Amino acid sequence: MKKNRLEAFSDGVLAIIITIMVLELKVPHEARLEALWPVFPVFLSYVLSFLYVGIYWNNHHHLFQITKYVSAGVLWANMHLLFWLSLFPFTTAWLGENHWAAIPAAVYGFVLLMAAIAYYLLQRAILATEGKRSLLGEALGNDWKGKLSPVLYFLAILLSFVNPWISLVLYAAAAMLWLIPDRRIEKVLQRHEADAMKAGRAFRAEEED
Amino acid sequence: MKKNRLEAFSDGVLAIIITIMVLELKVPHEARLEALWPVFPVFLSYVLSFLYVGIYWNNHHHLFQITKYVSAGVLWANMHLLFWLSLFPFTTAWLGENHWAAIPAAVYGFVLLMAAIAYYLLQRAILATEGKRSLLGEALGNDWKGKLSPVLYFLAILLSFVNPWISLVLYAAAAMLWLIPDRRIEKVLQRHEADAMKAGRAFRAEEED
Amino acid sequence: MKKNRLEAFSDGVLAIIITIMVLELKVPHEARLEALWPVFPVFLSYVLSFLYVGIYWNNHHHLFQITKYVSAGVLWANMHLLFWLSLFPFTTAWLGENHWAAIPAAVYGFVLLMAAIAYYLLQRAILATEGKRSLLGEALGNDWKGKLSPVLYFLAILLSFVNPWISLVLYAAAAMLWLIPDRRIEKVLQRHEADAMKAGRAFRAEEED
Amino acid sequence: MKKNRLEAFSDGVLAIIITIMVLELKVPHEARLEALWPVFPVFLSYVLSFLYVGIYWNNHHHLFQITKYVSAGVLWANMHLLFWLSLFPFTTAWLGENHWAAIPAAVYGFVLLMAAIAYYLLQRAILATEGKRSLLGEALGNDWKGKLSPVLYFLAILLSFVNPWISLVLYAAAAMLWLIPDRRIEKVLQRHEADAMKAGRAFRAEEED
Repeated sequence: MKKNRLEAFSDGVLAIIITIMVLELKVPHEARLEALWPVFPVFLSYVLSFLYVGIYWNNHHHLFQITKYVSAGVLWANMHLLFWLSLFPFTTAWLGENHWAAIPAAVYGFVLLMAAIAYYLLQRAILATEGKRSLLGEALGNDWKGKLSPVLYFLAILLSFVNPWISLVLYAAAAMLWLIPDRRIEKVLQRHEADAMKAGRAFRAEEED
Repeated sequence: MKKNRLEAFSDGVLAIIITIMVLELKVPHEARLEALWPVFPVFLSYVLSFLYVGIYWNNHHHLFQITKYVSAGVLWANMHLLFWLSLFPFTTAWLGENHWAAIPAAVYGFVLLMAAIAYYLLQRAILATEGKRSLLGEALGNDWKGKLSPVLYFLAILLSFVNPWISLVLYAAAAMLWLIPDRRIEKVLQRHEADAMKAGRAFRAEEED
Repeated sequence: MKKNRLEAFSDGVLAIIITIMVLELKVPHEARLEALWPVFPVFLSYVLSFLYVGIYWNNHHHLFQITKYVSAGVLWANMHLLFWLSLFPFTTAWLGENHWAAIPAAVYGFVLLMAAIAYYLLQRAILATEGKRSLLGEALGNDWKGKLSPVLYFLAILLSFVNPWISLVLYAAAAMLWLIPDRRIEKVLQRHEADAMKAGRAFRAEEED
Repeated sequence: MKKNRLEAFSDGVLAIIITIMVLELKVPHEARLEALWPVFPVFLSYVLSFLYVGIYWNNHHHLFQITKYVSAGVLWANMHLLFWLSLFPFTTAWLGENHWAAIPAAVYGFVLLMAAIAYYLLQRAILATEGKRSLLGEALGNDWKGKLSPVLYFLAILLSFVNPWISLVLYAAAAMLWLIPDRRIEKVLQRHEADAMKAGRAFRAEEED
């Protein structure tokens, strides 16, 4: 039950973040198609950030599906993640309004990097209560995406001073990593879920004794 | 459980979309009734978009009621639908502020069309995991509304260059299609729900063996 | 289950309405206490509207607690109610910014009146599917508040042209009607809930035969 | 069930409050790092308020976990708490935009104080229905944080006229009180939860007789 409310609150915050970003698309006063042109870089930034919030929701969803117990540490690690994600609307708008200039591109990457670190800390906090032999412990063995992404963000921050478009490509590439269906992992997860179901049943059976 | 959280997240996003559109109704500075007049076209656009978000929520609700399993493909098809719906506040405000001019009316229709396509792809993604013989497979046999709507949006986009008011009528007509109670379909759905309940019971019975 | 998602969506919309109204409290640029003075009428309007959204949430909550089945008609009657409630931020801001002038006070009352009518229609729609002998049918026998409120709103609209402060008093009085704890009704509801629980158990027992 | 919907509505409101505060971080028009400087005090205020909303969500979550019955009084006490929390975005923005001036710092503290009082009243309202011998009654014996916090806010309000930075330190210190993990209390809570589970089982067993 504890877990459900943490999920509900996080869903709420993520749903609001993903939706209020659209308020930064300033409605043009003219009715011509050219009037949409200045909105276009903001729109591109919006698409990228929408993808990222979608990916975080997706991963959060999977993470808590294999989590059993939520400690105070997990609650605050989750709040910490939501904090960095809540800055997406700000960095997205700054990036878009300045047509992907160097500094806003680097700051955008900095918030992505901090969110990735916060997500890593959240996984650690859950692992600390669940133990290394838990389902999450096993699943983390495959976490090459979680390790590669921060490296890409860090590189992109540095390269944004060379050419901010390189950082754009890197941010998009890091997002693609998570979007490309990774059937192998999904199968592992399905097996885990089946295990979890059995484990849950065994757990309930024990509890009832 | 997976399904519940997808529903909760989608409910959150749809609730926010439907509500923040009202922020585009700029509060007039004068206290006279005439001061509401410039707000009126924005209000009309708001009513239309409110109806559309309501219809999408309604259909989404029915769609997931007869869905059993949520794959990664379904998660992303759902996110894709939410993306296009999240652009409603922008196109609604542009349409209203420009008093239903041709270009904003066409762009409004374009986003409606993309949302309709995204909804179709979502149905396909669910069908791909559930199979053609599932409840959804049967229900889709009746999907003449889902097929007629995009045609109407496409026509409206073209005709908005002749007279944007024709496109307004077509958007409203397409919305009416979904609003008029279709008792026959509801009965079929009720039957399906009864079947689903039985199927669910049978499924659980099998699982427990 | 159907009911749960309707409740969740309505909760989301009401939570957003009640919260975005605060965005109309424009942050003063000066750091003096006097700078809060122009915000004060908007604040007063905010308090009143906060109370009203709270009352609607409260009543909605009780209404659906004694509702068993949600038809398409109920879904749309609920959406219709949410539509009028979604206009609260607009009328609240207009009222506050114009320091309770006659026309904004009347328009504020008009939206209150339409919301009250929408709530009445929602009750009717539920009654149409549940039957007069249902728990709701019995509960509606005591609905003197639901009948008195629209009369007060209507009076307040007319009297706002005499003196808008009279309408303010009437709106506040109508809100108080719902806030004053009515222990008798609560006891009746508790009895109903106990009955509903029994009825539900009997219903499930029948269903399982 | 009643409880679930109160939790869902509160989660929604808190999720929106915590997220719309970020809208007060005005996006700078220039793409230089120095352009972030004027946003910095608003950002600091945002961090503090984010912490406070996080703490309130956390405590609310724990409070309702050991609550069994939700009366009309509890519903309104909860709404009263949400009212004061809903003013956080306003006071946060005023504080930040005026670089922690005396009056906005005092008003910020006043809303913190009112929220703390509202939380205390909510605890009282729950206690009134649950009884002193309930789990909450026992848990409140340890409520030194709940008693110290309002004293700190009151002091901070007074001292903001001496130097607003003292009040900043006091607000941050009061937040830290709640953030520092208090393992002893958590253990007590865990024991309570185990008791609640047993009590719940016994309750259901009785009910089924």
